[in-house]
Amino acid sequence: MNDIIGRLTEVLSSRRQADPDSSYVAQLHNKGLDHILKKVGEESAEVLIAAKALGYEHKDHNREAVIYETADLWFHTMVMLSHLGLEPADVLNELDRRFGLSGIEEKASRG
Amino acid sequence: MNDIIGRLTEVLSSRRQADPDSSYVAQLHNKGLDHILKKVGEESAEVLIAAKALGYEHKDHNREAVIYETADLWFHTMVMLSHLGLEPADVLNELDRRFGLSGIEEKASRG
Amino acid sequence: MNDIIGRLTEVLSSRRQADPDSSYVAQLHNKGLDHILKKVGEESAEVLIAAKALGYEHKDHNREAVIYETADLWFHTMVMLSHLGLEPADVLNELDRRFGLSGIEEKASRG
Amino acid sequence: MNDIIGRLTEVLSSRRQADPDSSYVAQLHNKGLDHILKKVGEESAEVLIAAKALGYEHKDHNREAVIYETADLWFHTMVMLSHLGLEPADVLNELDRRFGLSGIEEKASRG
Repeated sequence: MNDIIGRLTEVLSSRRQADPDSSYVAQLHNKGLDHILKKVGEESAEVLIAAKALGYEHKDHNREAVIYETADLWFHTMVMLSHLGLEPADVLNELDRRFGLSGIEEKASRG
Repeated sequence: MNDIIGRLTEVLSSRRQADPDSSYVAQLHNKGLDHILKKVGEESAEVLIAAKALGYEHKDHNREAVIYETADLWFHTMVMLSHLGLEPADVLNELDRRFGLSGIEEKASRG
Repeated sequence: MNDIIGRLTEVLSSRRQADPDSSYVAQLHNKGLDHILKKVGEESAEVLIAAKALGYEHKDHNREAVIYETADLWFHTMVMLSHLGLEPADVLNELDRRFGLSGIEEKASRG
Repeated sequence: MNDIIGRLTEVLSSRRQADPDSSYVAQLHNKGLDHILKKVGEESAEVLIAAKALGYEHKDHNREAVIYETADLWFHTMVMLSHLGLEPADVLNELDRRFGLSGIEEKASRG
């Protein structure tokens, strides 16, 4: 994945202080936590709606809608994390911990 | 991030065919799309609840709850993608496309 | 409650065929099911956000926000029911059935 | 509607102090606001999922699912209102105010 999330984290962090007139990310921070959470809830609903459509009709535009809406959901949760002083890396480390994802490497290095 | 999402994609894919009695991921696929989407909706609500708590009380356990619930939300959206024949990479590529994240490197390499 | 829901059902039904330019209800029907469901999801998120705020700060404006957002949620679920050929009465009858609400009167009248 | 909501309000109020072992309503209050809100978010997701199914397949069991899940959603928002010291009547009055539902009667009485 070439660390797209790592770079997106940097972009989100740099835009936090940008001019709300020119940056959607700055606008979200400016409007505050409730507005960001409202967007998270909204995008979550859109993911469900798009996923049900793809479940019924296996068409390209439904597939694209699921990808698009999931991107929207992940993006807004990342802005939320940033607004709360957290980072996507914290979430990925939690997933790593649960699934022992880096465990493979650990074991290999024990060799 | 050492490609945690890439490795999680592999884990989710390999567990899809596992025994539902021993794997939560296999269980989710076994219960079907509606059950997976219900979990996505549920985790989204839990993210909102945890984020509001952290917004009011900047305490470690609230910080950990936001990380934990966001990990739950991302995890269940990844299972949903897998169930629908999609991959987290599709979502990350969409984010990449929007923010021109790999564009930075491309420009640099043109030097 | 003087049957506010009964009268609202009639209002929603009569506005379904109205001009989308002059009626928000007609506009929602015109935009279709996905748009209505997106609003239901959005209002649900707003209810959660407002309820958490009231849970932390027992202030009048937080109390009013919970009432306002719950009204928004109920209203949009009623438009959804109408769009799908259902009625709030169907939902109230289901609640009646579960809680045996009209049973109390029945018993009393048996006296 | 024979004031089903009015009677449900009374039932919910009387069960609030009941034994959590014998009453689901008492159990919800006992578990607290976050648990109730989690249920609201969960039921909201189930409404969306059921409504999309009915949108695709106009079958009786899908129709019943929408009614059932909407009843679940309304029920849990009513428990939430009760937990926060509010009442369904507050929400119905807000809807009344917006749509001027009792306005018809007021005008008539002016005669």
